[in-house]
Amino acid sequence: MKKTKQLRNLVNSPKLEFIMEAHNGLSAKIVEEAGFKGIWASGLSISAAMGVRDSNEASWTQVLDVLEFMSDATSIPILLDGDTGYGNFNNARRLVKKLEQHSIAGVCIEDKRFPKMNSLINGQGQALADIEEFSGKIKAMKDTQTDEDFTVVARVEAFIAGKGLEAALQRAEAYRKAGADAVFIHSKRTDAAEIETFMKEWAGRLPVVIVPTKYYTTPTARFQELGISLVIWANHNLRASIQAMQHLSNRIYRDESLVHIEKSVATLEEVFRLQGVEELQAAERQYFPSSESGSGGHV
Amino acid sequence: MKKTKQLRNLVNSPKLEFIMEAHNGLSAKIVEEAGFKGIWASGLSISAAMGVRDSNEASWTQVLDVLEFMSDATSIPILLDGDTGYGNFNNARRLVKKLEQHSIAGVCIEDKRFPKMNSLINGQGQALADIEEFSGKIKAMKDTQTDEDFTVVARVEAFIAGKGLEAALQRAEAYRKAGADAVFIHSKRTDAAEIETFMKEWAGRLPVVIVPTKYYTTPTARFQELGISLVIWANHNLRASIQAMQHLSNRIYRDESLVHIEKSVATLEEVFRLQGVEELQAAERQYFPSSESGSGGHV
Amino acid sequence: MKKTKQLRNLVNSPKLEFIMEAHNGLSAKIVEEAGFKGIWASGLSISAAMGVRDSNEASWTQVLDVLEFMSDATSIPILLDGDTGYGNFNNARRLVKKLEQHSIAGVCIEDKRFPKMNSLINGQGQALADIEEFSGKIKAMKDTQTDEDFTVVARVEAFIAGKGLEAALQRAEAYRKAGADAVFIHSKRTDAAEIETFMKEWAGRLPVVIVPTKYYTTPTARFQELGISLVIWANHNLRASIQAMQHLSNRIYRDESLVHIEKSVATLEEVFRLQGVEELQAAERQYFPSSESGSGGHV
Amino acid sequence: MKKTKQLRNLVNSPKLEFIMEAHNGLSAKIVEEAGFKGIWASGLSISAAMGVRDSNEASWTQVLDVLEFMSDATSIPILLDGDTGYGNFNNARRLVKKLEQHSIAGVCIEDKRFPKMNSLINGQGQALADIEEFSGKIKAMKDTQTDEDFTVVARVEAFIAGKGLEAALQRAEAYRKAGADAVFIHSKRTDAAEIETFMKEWAGRLPVVIVPTKYYTTPTARFQELGISLVIWANHNLRASIQAMQHLSNRIYRDESLVHIEKSVATLEEVFRLQGVEELQAAERQYFPSSESGSGGHV
Repeated sequence: MKKTKQLRNLVNSPKLEFIMEAHNGLSAKIVEEAGFKGIWASGLSISAAMGVRDSNEASWTQVLDVLEFMSDATSIPILLDGDTGYGNFNNARRLVKKLEQHSIAGVCIEDKRFPKMNSLINGQGQALADIEEFSGKIKAMKDTQTDEDFTVVARVEAFIAGKGLEAALQRAEAYRKAGADAVFIHSKRTDAAEIETFMKEWAGRLPVVIVPTKYYTTPTARFQELGISLVIWANHNLRASIQAMQHLSNRIYRDESLVHIEKSVATLEEVFRLQGVEELQAAERQYFPSSESGSGGHV
Repeated sequence: MKKTKQLRNLVNSPKLEFIMEAHNGLSAKIVEEAGFKGIWASGLSISAAMGVRDSNEASWTQVLDVLEFMSDATSIPILLDGDTGYGNFNNARRLVKKLEQHSIAGVCIEDKRFPKMNSLINGQGQALADIEEFSGKIKAMKDTQTDEDFTVVARVEAFIAGKGLEAALQRAEAYRKAGADAVFIHSKRTDAAEIETFMKEWAGRLPVVIVPTKYYTTPTARFQELGISLVIWANHNLRASIQAMQHLSNRIYRDESLVHIEKSVATLEEVFRLQGVEELQAAERQYFPSSESGSGGHV
Repeated sequence: MKKTKQLRNLVNSPKLEFIMEAHNGLSAKIVEEAGFKGIWASGLSISAAMGVRDSNEASWTQVLDVLEFMSDATSIPILLDGDTGYGNFNNARRLVKKLEQHSIAGVCIEDKRFPKMNSLINGQGQALADIEEFSGKIKAMKDTQTDEDFTVVARVEAFIAGKGLEAALQRAEAYRKAGADAVFIHSKRTDAAEIETFMKEWAGRLPVVIVPTKYYTTPTARFQELGISLVIWANHNLRASIQAMQHLSNRIYRDESLVHIEKSVATLEEVFRLQGVEELQAAERQYFPSSESGSGGHV
Repeated sequence: MKKTKQLRNLVNSPKLEFIMEAHNGLSAKIVEEAGFKGIWASGLSISAAMGVRDSNEASWTQVLDVLEFMSDATSIPILLDGDTGYGNFNNARRLVKKLEQHSIAGVCIEDKRFPKMNSLINGQGQALADIEEFSGKIKAMKDTQTDEDFTVVARVEAFIAGKGLEAALQRAEAYRKAGADAVFIHSKRTDAAEIETFMKEWAGRLPVVIVPTKYYTTPTARFQELGISLVIWANHNLRASIQAMQHLSNRIYRDESLVHIEKSVATLEEVFRLQGVEELQAAERQYFPSSESGSGGHV
C-alpha cells in the first residue's frame, strides 16, 4: 500500500495508533523493525543529531536530505515535523511538492513564526502565527498535493503560547475549515488537563494527534477514552542514543580499552545486517563478473 | 591551537593516543565532552547512520555535509575515514581541498579500489590498488594541502586482502616515500599477530595507526610496547546507539507507554544543553528587540 | 503523458528526433519553450557551468541537485548524460533509483572507467570498461527501474578509444543483449564515416543515438537516411552563454556603463516571466491575507 | 591578498569601483577574466538560473552550494546578495559563519521580511523590516565574523517601499550605528533622483553602494561626482545568457542543424580552457602512472 495511504489509515483509524521518532535512515529502520506502523521525523531530533538547534538552523533542504535517506531505508510512512512550513504559504507549497517527490506521507506544520523555537523551551519565542495567514498556508498546501492521501496535520500551539482553551479551539476550527486532515494539539503541562478539555469541546471534528512527552505518566488507555487518534513518541530514540553514547564514550575514555563494552553494543554483523550487506553481496554475484575481481570496478 | 596542529601532535606524540568514532554532529560533541583529543569520522558509521552501505553509496559530498556539522559542533580535530579518496588522484586532491575548507584536520585513505567494500566483510571485494597509482594519489594529496599540518594517513590493506607481511611492508614503505604522514596497518585477525610482526619490521619509520575492532582483547599496554602511535575506537558510538535504540523502540512498542523508559534516556534538558540552547537565548536578549516579540522574526 | 513514456516514444519514433542540451533549470525551460521534445542533461555542460571539469569532480549527488531543478522547471523528458554510472553496477543501481525519484526519464552511460575524461579531449584518458562488467551494469540498471518506460542508453566509446568497427559492434551487441534500450555510438571524427559504417552493420538491432558535435557539417537528412533515431545537440546552450557572457562582461568592463548593452540582453520582465512570477503573485492573492501585508510572512 | 581584504579595499576606495554579477562558477570565472575586481552573487540571477523565483524558493544552503563553486573558480572577492539574511539574527549569524568558511568576502542584507520578493517587482511584497530588529541582525553578524575584513553591507529598501528620504536616512543611520560597513541605497526610478537626494544628506558617513539597473542611463561620471563608492552591474550576465540561449535554441530547433550557429558560439576548446583541463592533463602526467592506463583509476 502507498505510504500516503498507510498514514491516512493510521490517522483515520478508530483505534488509538502510535508512531515513533527517528532522525536518520538507521533509526527509521529500527523503528520499522520494532513493529511501528509509522515514523515521526522529529525536527528536534534531526537538528540535535546534526549538532544544531531546533530553530531552523539547518536549512529545509538539509532536512529533506535526511528524510530522503529515512524514506529510502523504510517501507512505512513518515510524518514530517515540518515546523512552520519553513516560511510563508509559498515555501510550504514547495515543501509539499518536495515531500511528495521524496515519498514522505505527510507533514505537520505549527502555527508559529519562522524561525521557530522548540515548544518545550520555556520563556519567549512561542509567538503564534496570524490565524488567517496560517489558514491560507494550509489551504495552499492542500491545493498543492497531487496525491489525495498526502496528509497535512495542523499543530495548534495555543496552549504552548499560554493562551487558553478558547484560542485553541478557535485555531483548530479555522485550520479544519482550511482543509487540515488532522489537528495536533500540543501541551507542555505534566498532566493531560489541557488535552482533556480540548477533546471534550472538540468533539471529534477531525482526528487529533498528541505528543505526550511532558504528560507521559497519563495512562495510554486514557488517550483512547478521550478519542485521540494518534500518539507520537516524539524524541526518545534520540534521547536513548545520547544516553548510550555518553555512557560508552566515557567508559572507553576511562578504560582505554573495549573489553568491558564489547558485549554491550550491537555486533558488527548486526550493523552490516541493518545496512543490507547481504543484498549487495548477492547482487555482486549476479551482476559483477568474478573475472573482474580486483580490476577497478569491484565493490 | 589549530585543529590540524592538534591532530599532527596526536599522531607524532611519543605516547599512545586514542581517538573515538563519531558519525554526526551530536556524537562528535559527545566524544569531545568525554575527553577524547580527536574524532574518527568513520565511513562505516556515517553510512550506517544514513541507512546505506559502506560501499560509497552515499556520495563524497554527502559525507562532507556530515563532516561540516561535526566540525562546527566541536573544537577537537577530526580524522576522516576517506575510503579510497573517492576515485583517482584528482578526486583525492579535491577531497583535500574541501576538507581544509571544512576545518577537517586529516584524512586516511586505503589502498583499495573505488567503490570500496568494508574491510571487515569476508569474501571478495578487497582487491588492492596498484602501488604506484596509490602512491601517486598520496603525493597529489600532499602537494594539494595548503596547511602544512594537514595529515594524510595511508591505510595498508595488505593483511585484509590476505597478502602477507612482505606485501604490507612494501606498500607501507612506498606510501611513506610518497609522503604519507602516518601508516594505518589494518588486520581482521582476532589477535594482534599481524600487527606485531609488522611493527617489528617497520621499526618506526613513520607513526603507526591501528583499529583494534577485531583484536580488542589485546591489552592496550601491548600497543604501547609495540610503539603504536594512535589507536582508533572505530565504530562503537554507532553500535551503542543501535543497541540502545533497538531496545528502546522494542520496549515502547510493547508497552505503548513511556513510563518504563523515561528514566533511562537523556532528559530533554540534556538534549537542549547539547544543542547549545542557552547561547541562543542569551543572543536573543542581546540582538533581538523584545518589542519584536511575536512579530515574525522571533526565534 | 509520463516523461518516461515521452522519452521512450522519442527513442522509438520511426522519424529522426532531436533533443537539446541544458545545464540548469533556466536553460531547461528555454529548451522546452523553443519547442524541443526532450532535454539532454550534459555532463560537460553541467560541470562547466559549475566551474569544474568533466571528470567527475562534482559528485553524482551534486549533479542530481541540478537535475532536480531542471525537472521541476519543465514538462518534457530529460535524458541524463550519466558518465560511467558514477562507479560500479551498485552505484549505477542507486543512480537509477534516484533518477526515477526525480522524474528523470532516462540515462545514458558510457563504457569507460570512473572517473571519466570528456570524450572530445585528445590524448589518454579514454580507456574502455570491461565488456562483461559494463554489460552487468546495464543489466543491474534495467532490473532496478520500477517504471518500464525508463530508458537506459548504452554509449559505445570504441571509436573514441581508437578501436575499430569490430570492437564497436561487439560492444553494442553485448549491451543490447544486456538489456539496453538504445545505443549511442560516439565519434570524434569531423565526418560521419564511423557512424555510417556502424549503421550499415548494426542494421537497426536497437535505436541509435548520436552526438554530431564534431561532424556537424554532415547534412541532417543523411542521419535520417542512415536510420538514426535520435540526434543530441549536446553542448550548444552552454557555448552560446559563454560567448554572450564573455562579450557582455568585456564590454561593460570597458564602458563602465550599461548604456550600450541594455538593449541586447533579455529584459528583467523576461527574467521574471521565465521564473513564473505571475503565478506567485496570483497565489499570494489567493492564499495570503492582505491584512498580513508587511507582517513578516509576506513574500 | 585575502579576498576579504580585497573587497574591503574596493568598498573603501576613494575612486568609483565596479563589480559584476555572476550566478555560477562559470560566469564567476568570466567576470574575473574580464578584469573586474569583484563579483556580485546575485540572488535574482542565482534563483533564475536554478529555474525558481527570487523569493527564497531555493534554500540558503542551496545558494551556499553555488557560492562554493563560484569561490573555488575565482581569486577575486565575492559579495553575496544575502536577501534578508534568510531569517532572523540567528540565521544571519549562521550565514556569516558559513560564508567565512566558503571564503566569501562579504554579504549584503536588505531590510525586508523573510521570504523576500525581488525589489524590482511592482505591487505588494516590499514590506520593510522593523528598524530595531534589522539593526540587531547587523550587530549580530558583525559580532560573529572572525575576519575583521569581512564586509556587511546594509541594503536600505525605503525608496523601494515607497517611503521617502527621511525614512531612508533614518534607516541608513541606524544600520551605520549597528556596525554596517557600507550602505546600499536602492531605487527603482528610471532616473537617479532618489540617489542624488540621499547622497547629499548622507554626506559620506559610510561608503555607499548602488545598483543602477533601472537608472542605467545616468552617466557613470555622475555617480563619481555624488561620491558613490561601488556600482554593481547586478544581473546582466544572466540576461545576456538568456538572450543568447533563447536565440540559439530557437535557431537550432528551426534549422535542425548546427551549421548556421557553430561559428557563433564558444568553441569546445574554450570550454575546456575555462574548465582548466590543461592543469588536469599535467597533473595526470605527474601523479598517474602511465602503466595504469586503462586500469580503472584513469581520468
